[in-house]
Amino acid sequence: MEFALIDWIRRQAGSHPRVALGIGDDAAALRWDSGADCLVAMDMLVENVHFSIPEATPRLIGRKALAVNLSDIAAMAGRPLAAFVSVAIPRGKGMAFAQEIHAGVLELANRFDVALAGGDTAATDGPLVISVAVIGEPGGRGIVRREGAKAGDWIMATGTFGGSLAGRHLTFEPRVAEAIALHEAVPLHAMIDVSDGLAADLHHILEASGVGAVIGQDAIPVSPDARNLDDGKTPLDHALGDGEDFELLFTVSPEDGKRLVADSPVSVRLAWFGEIVAEPGCRILDASGQSRPLPRAGWVHEL
Amino acid sequence: MEFALIDWIRRQAGSHPRVALGIGDDAAALRWDSGADCLVAMDMLVENVHFSIPEATPRLIGRKALAVNLSDIAAMAGRPLAAFVSVAIPRGKGMAFAQEIHAGVLELANRFDVALAGGDTAATDGPLVISVAVIGEPGGRGIVRREGAKAGDWIMATGTFGGSLAGRHLTFEPRVAEAIALHEAVPLHAMIDVSDGLAADLHHILEASGVGAVIGQDAIPVSPDARNLDDGKTPLDHALGDGEDFELLFTVSPEDGKRLVADSPVSVRLAWFGEIVAEPGCRILDASGQSRPLPRAGWVHEL
Repeated sequence: MEFALIDWIRRQAGSHPRVALGIGDDAAALRWDSGADCLVAMDMLVENVHFSIPEATPRLIGRKALAVNLSDIAAMAGRPLAAFVSVAIPRGKGMAFAQEIHAGVLELANRFDVALAGGDTAATDGPLVISVAVIGEPGGRGIVRREGAKAGDWIMATGTFGGSLAGRHLTFEPRVAEAIALHEAVPLHAMIDVSDGLAADLHHILEASGVGAVIGQDAIPVSPDARNLDDGKTPLDHALGDGEDFELLFTVSPEDGKRLVADSPVSVRLAWFGEIVAEPGCRILDASGQSRPLPRAGWVHEL
Repeated sequence: MEFALIDWIRRQAGSHPRVALGIGDDAAALRWDSGADCLVAMDMLVENVHFSIPEATPRLIGRKALAVNLSDIAAMAGRPLAAFVSVAIPRGKGMAFAQEIHAGVLELANRFDVALAGGDTAATDGPLVISVAVIGEPGGRGIVRREGAKAGDWIMATGTFGGSLAGRHLTFEPRVAEAIALHEAVPLHAMIDVSDGLAADLHHILEASGVGAVIGQDAIPVSPDARNLDDGKTPLDHALGDGEDFELLFTVSPEDGKRLVADSPVSVRLAWFGEIVAEPGCRILDASGQSRPLPRAGWVHEL
């Protein structure tokens, strides 16, 4: 099956101006004449850990495997150029199943003008594993790291949070264009894409930057999915703890934050819900003005 | 375990002049100021397909996963710069097992001056899967593709072939320096690293180049491992069919072939064992001057 599948993938992948040599040789060659750094993201999805069949169709699995990597490049304010996809396919799943995975990759890749330029396939006796690497380059203003948040910065995010397991974890839109537009509008100080959870990923920024934060409970952008759940946790718990939202979490100077609020360069919702402080740790403030530590796991239902 | 493991890997990985930003952010940033193309290889190994535990220790699994990708970059006459390693680790294997895999990667990476710059880890209910991507750049004379073999070219190879399952498939040396040295000494017309088998990979060169070949049975460099097997196949069958030798198979003009034979730029054995012809297909010639088609699978024991 492997050679027939690779031939099929190669025909589907087509050509791309940045790919000097694509699928079919020992390695791919990407054109790199701009002098820019080379950004590389590589994330792996495992069946029954990151998705379950049949909830996730093969097409959605391929889509998600690419999307999480595009989201990582977005979190650097980078521009993705080429994707490499390796899949360990459970024996007996057959050619059509493998093609559907790649069709899901290609559909999203084409929409983001990303070339499918290589990868690998193998059979496995175990669950499906899909590993994707995405190569990109920085936008005009350079990359944005997790470190760089400064005391006084506003904490902002795209979109809404919580309840992504209801479906968004498979169908989310990587915020590639949004990250570049935001970073072109104002210099972003620190950025991450929220995969582990809003609280956990905020902690990642704080630790990398050596700062702390205070966030306002009522300002956190809670998703409709989180409000619709009825499982003993509050919508806020879901927003802070669920993860796999793949929205951008970033900090900017207060002046630039005001600019973004007054005249947003993106069509997706932007929320301002906290401030970076010098003292390490993260606290969450309720409507009465009481504050408590925000644990990394995001559980605050005792508030 | 994941964060503790990543911290450990990051400390082991250290710094590298070509890595502007390594493990710990959403993506890595590699310095790319040379104007060279960006080479990308990505190969995946699956337990019980590409290796078996306990024959393969975790250290050898990590080593092999990197080595097959270094071999792919070598097959382009490229210089590997950075590696990205994603591992799906069977539940219950524990931290020490995961560290040993990365220790195997790092040992080989350090020896080839390749940075470990990123990747991913996840738990799995199934067999171990390790996916590696290696980023490299062309040497001074540019890349060598599979296409480019011309009628009259000599067919040559580094090392010996067959019986790699006896151990070499885990411990082979990627021919990175050899490929660059050969391509600097004379222009290589076509090259591949032998993973599927000498016969199969020769067919890959022939098909990509639109040519054929005649090879001499007695000139094929058969490995001692292949001669030591006693399983009903001949040593020649093993040399042509076994695969996972990870030696370089390449073609050069007859003049350049003579130069390489007279004054080899590499310390590993070089063999000349055939010639490219215009007519498609591949034939193998025995000592009596009889020729037969060489099937892709390499089985010629009826000769």
